[in-house]
Amino acid sequence: MNYQELFGTIASKRSFLCIGLDSEIDKLPPAVMKYEDPVFEFNRRIIDSTADYAVAYKPNVAFYECNGIRGWKSLEATLKYIKDNYPGILVIADAKRGDIGNTSRMYARAFFEELDFDAITVAPYMGEDSVKPFLEYSGKWVVILALTSNKGADDFQYHNEGGIRLFERVLDVSKKWGSPDNTMYVAGATRAEMLMEIRRIVPDHFLLVPGVGAQGGNLEQVAKYGLNSKCGLLVNSSRGIIFADNSEDFDKTAGRKAKEMQQEMAGYLAAGGII
Amino acid sequence: MNYQELFGTIASKRSFLCIGLDSEIDKLPPAVMKYEDPVFEFNRRIIDSTADYAVAYKPNVAFYECNGIRGWKSLEATLKYIKDNYPGILVIADAKRGDIGNTSRMYARAFFEELDFDAITVAPYMGEDSVKPFLEYSGKWVVILALTSNKGADDFQYHNEGGIRLFERVLDVSKKWGSPDNTMYVAGATRAEMLMEIRRIVPDHFLLVPGVGAQGGNLEQVAKYGLNSKCGLLVNSSRGIIFADNSEDFDKTAGRKAKEMQQEMAGYLAAGGII
Repeated sequence: MNYQELFGTIASKRSFLCIGLDSEIDKLPPAVMKYEDPVFEFNRRIIDSTADYAVAYKPNVAFYECNGIRGWKSLEATLKYIKDNYPGILVIADAKRGDIGNTSRMYARAFFEELDFDAITVAPYMGEDSVKPFLEYSGKWVVILALTSNKGADDFQYHNEGGIRLFERVLDVSKKWGSPDNTMYVAGATRAEMLMEIRRIVPDHFLLVPGVGAQGGNLEQVAKYGLNSKCGLLVNSSRGIIFADNSEDFDKTAGRKAKEMQQEMAGYLAAGGII
Repeated sequence: MNYQELFGTIASKRSFLCIGLDSEIDKLPPAVMKYEDPVFEFNRRIIDSTADYAVAYKPNVAFYECNGIRGWKSLEATLKYIKDNYPGILVIADAKRGDIGNTSRMYARAFFEELDFDAITVAPYMGEDSVKPFLEYSGKWVVILALTSNKGADDFQYHNEGGIRLFERVLDVSKKWGSPDNTMYVAGATRAEMLMEIRRIVPDHFLLVPGVGAQGGNLEQVAKYGLNSKCGLLVNSSRGIIFADNSEDFDKTAGRKAKEMQQEMAGYLAAGGII
């Protein structure tokens, strides 16, 4: 999916909502536990009830890997379900991979060939040759960690060389590896005003913003500092949508929560003259 | 496996060799391709022929993930084979994982519970809460990326705040999260003299040193700068051993290559008065 297609989906749904499918098996509602693959059944219902409001889904691979082969099957089935039923939606493997070149090439093959994800999150610590293999796939996206939403972001991401913090250097150096057509950045929402500083370095790139909802980020602030003329934002919510309700009606509640976010987003898109 | 047990294995085998099972399916010798699981059959023969000389095996997870569920089965079977047949050998999942706390907890569960690896490599970019969940397992090891052996290491790892480079900050900050009993560091061998600088910050920790062999690192230099009184090194070789020969006798050649490295290592251990 290219930039224009992604913007088209955003414009038609009036949404820049990404839903994180962090479908931890211990947190699933009892209603799905009788199924052979409870994780897939949970995801299927969440997807069906939220697909009108979401432009992207982001399964975090950790929540599947922790179930071994069973988990890998749930991940495959979820991806296939989205592709078969909602082909306009971007599907991001939140995998945070990255290794030396010949190894990253294998991870790229895992997520872009063996599985048909549209995008993958990658960690930048090992530099250019750890990221480049992912950029060689036409129509695919690489989402590079820049500033994350967790407390540990303070440990290294602010390491400062002559006024240039590590996350700024990551943005400045890595934006030359690809382009806004195949590269996005993870930019945490717990410090929304930082998005302004990130926008100075990457005005045109899409930013994938985690941390809204359960982690304390504020959507209004994120929109204020992060939107550009082509939207340029994917705001992720995971637990705040998928685990909002543990009852039989969990999917309806998720749909309602997603719709609330979409409606708020539609307001920001209209106010900014973006759509 | 604790520090003393690991040192015991090193002393009894007079080796600090780690063999990387980067068993890329396209590079396997024809002799194994007739088996139902060629990757496992290849690994099994490599392990049987090298286990006398190796103190650790390190499957790089990328080379398994790229084969999807089939790959995950090969990885499980390989791990089980080592555990069942060579229980004194450390098995490291070279996975380079790392995410926010609740997610890293799932990765820890994947590699330390669902699979019974002894150690896992992790990326430090997201800081303390991305690494801590792995450290909560008794008898397990976390191997944190400090200085890697690839060209891209230059991009960010040398980012320098008031004379402190990022990889040094990673060492200095992260050594407080655990101890030499549960933390190791990846320290690339392509710049062996850097090991001296690393040893100033972490004199007692084990260093996992990739890059010897195919990537150009030199074992003598690594031993010179990296050994401490308890050895403190695991030197990894992957392609230089496992893909040294593509014939039916690939395993015998691998065994010979591993033995050569072990004998060179025995010399350094003796010369240093370590064993």
